[in-house]
Amino acid sequence: MKQIMVVNEALPLPRGKLAAQVAHASIAAFLSATNEQRQEWLQSGMPKIVLKCPSEEALTALHREAEAQSLPTYLVRDAGRTVLSEGTITCLGIGPADSTEIDKVTGELKLL
Amino acid sequence: MKQIMVVNEALPLPRGKLAAQVAHASIAAFLSATNEQRQEWLQSGMPKIVLKCPSEEALTALHREAEAQSLPTYLVRDAGRTVLSEGTITCLGIGPADSTEIDKVTGELKLL
Repeated sequence: MKQIMVVNEALPLPRGKLAAQVAHASIAAFLSATNEQRQEWLQSGMPKIVLKCPSEEALTALHREAEAQSLPTYLVRDAGRTVLSEGTITCLGIGPADSTEIDKVTGELKLL
Repeated sequence: MKQIMVVNEALPLPRGKLAAQVAHASIAAFLSATNEQRQEWLQSGMPKIVLKCPSEEALTALHREAEAQSLPTYLVRDAGRTVLSEGTITCLGIGPADSTEIDKVTGELKLL
């Protein structure tokens, strides 16, 4: 079991802002998982990994693919109150779910 | 309602690693909150802010203070599998809880 967050690296996100967006994706994807997925992941120590992708288009494509695989997933759109314009897609959360299933979607991506 | 994560800025954390630690603090503090706190916070859009403090000692002091104020809180110790030594304190989550209550503990800290 693991959880993956994918960050849109085309955006000029300061460290703190980036971390907040990743946390947002993490909680929202967690809440969209089944109770069984949540419990298994919590019991294994909540492993999570942050990856990167080059663009908003790449993120939305990954999101569609995660949905097609029936994985818990959540796409974060920024509220636009600070450095970004409203609705900018910053980050995607996938899981908690079985690692092999998640790797089918994110296996080619690099660590942030 | 809000949630605060405080990062130990003495550590040489790469962006992705930092974001994963903040997400860990966020979920763990969320799970230690009451059901009422969780629901109120989710309904207000899960506002979260990332702050910084200068050392591990400062983080543990903030953690004790949050506990003394009966705030939901969680101190993240790194598992030591990558860049840090095992048990290094990286990050503190406080809340979701009432903003005024959290500010009594973290009101003096700066944004990361």
